[in-house]
Amino acid sequence: MRVELKRAIYAENDAQASEIHEGLRARSIFTVNVLGSPGAGKTSLITRLAERLGADAPLAVIEGDVASDIDTRALRALGIDAYQIETGGDCHLNAPMIKAILSRMKMDDGSWLFIENIGNLICPAEFVIGEDLKIVVASVAEGSDKPYKYPAAFARSAAVVLTKPDLAEAVGFDEGFFRSGLASVAPKAPIFPLNGKTGEGAEPLAAWLREARHSA
Amino acid sequence: MRVELKRAIYAENDAQASEIHEGLRARSIFTVNVLGSPGAGKTSLITRLAERLGADAPLAVIEGDVASDIDTRALRALGIDAYQIETGGDCHLNAPMIKAILSRMKMDDGSWLFIENIGNLICPAEFVIGEDLKIVVASVAEGSDKPYKYPAAFARSAAVVLTKPDLAEAVGFDEGFFRSGLASVAPKAPIFPLNGKTGEGAEPLAAWLREARHSA
Repeated sequence: MRVELKRAIYAENDAQASEIHEGLRARSIFTVNVLGSPGAGKTSLITRLAERLGADAPLAVIEGDVASDIDTRALRALGIDAYQIETGGDCHLNAPMIKAILSRMKMDDGSWLFIENIGNLICPAEFVIGEDLKIVVASVAEGSDKPYKYPAAFARSAAVVLTKPDLAEAVGFDEGFFRSGLASVAPKAPIFPLNGKTGEGAEPLAAWLREARHSA
Repeated sequence: MRVELKRAIYAENDAQASEIHEGLRARSIFTVNVLGSPGAGKTSLITRLAERLGADAPLAVIEGDVASDIDTRALRALGIDAYQIETGGDCHLNAPMIKAILSRMKMDDGSWLFIENIGNLICPAEFVIGEDLKIVVASVAEGSDKPYKYPAAFARSAAVVLTKPDLAEAVGFDEGFFRSGLASVAPKAPIFPLNGKTGEGAEPLAAWLREARHSA
């Protein structure tokens, strides 16, 4: 019974997600769904990418949170066109939420659209929401075992952003163990180290995203 | 329909959780449900408490993970009596999972029982699983805004453990902002700083747990 309901929820979600994706593609909007744990550095990543990719094309952000609009206000204060979804408890964004907010957004054709998902390495991996690709953000402070413990988030992401690399030594981050875990679930996903405070590492990731968009 | 199903799931879970709790209380077992993000330091916390509380009374641990038994093996290597629940995708532990594993565990009367929930600040807060109390573990590396963004996990926890305090300066952790957020959702919850690497800070938390158990 529950399994059937889950299937029905996924089917309904996926149908809406396909529709959203087609609509965005028709307007040449390229959409990135950003996953990661609480405090992994998703908003800093988006800020650093906005500095770079926002120079090429218009850029908008949808911020997903269980509660609060702290990140949306921070992005707006930087002049970034940001919109808030507050799920009020739901542990992931879904296609109906994206459909609803897109109807209120004024995006230019050809935009970049970044969607910051709820801070959670589990549930957001289970849902497509109209994106061209997912990326997953993991902080070295979370430890080197995350690809083993949360395989779906890594397996479904096209790239991995490894944040707070300046803390690696202090926390004893074992990059070899992390890479082995990642290789077993997502052998093709590149890893981009990114220091969200300084922006170091953002340019290679921006270049990779431009290429992904170009070949989409 | 979904709301009704959710209510039915909660009701079924809560009834089983009450039954579990009564059974554990009858055996003088005190049960702590440990919440926190991926990589917050839940296993290190349990290890540090086991060193201290395990001297008073027998102690057992249930480890919840979406995938892998890395933590259970690490705890067993330290001589801690640990049992694994692998949810295979589920984002939280529930009472039926606990009931099933308890039936296979040989715990002495009077034990401490620590249950490490799935690394997730959202879903685990919604479920009671037979515990006497919840505690939530948050790393300073996750940032100072977590009580604002994930209010339920903090509101439903009797105490907050603030881990990796040695990184506070490097990450610019704003303790005042964290405390204000916590005060708005959990005004009575004490905060215990804990360095999981050195064990510094574990003794005050152990003392608080002994007191909580004594007055339960």
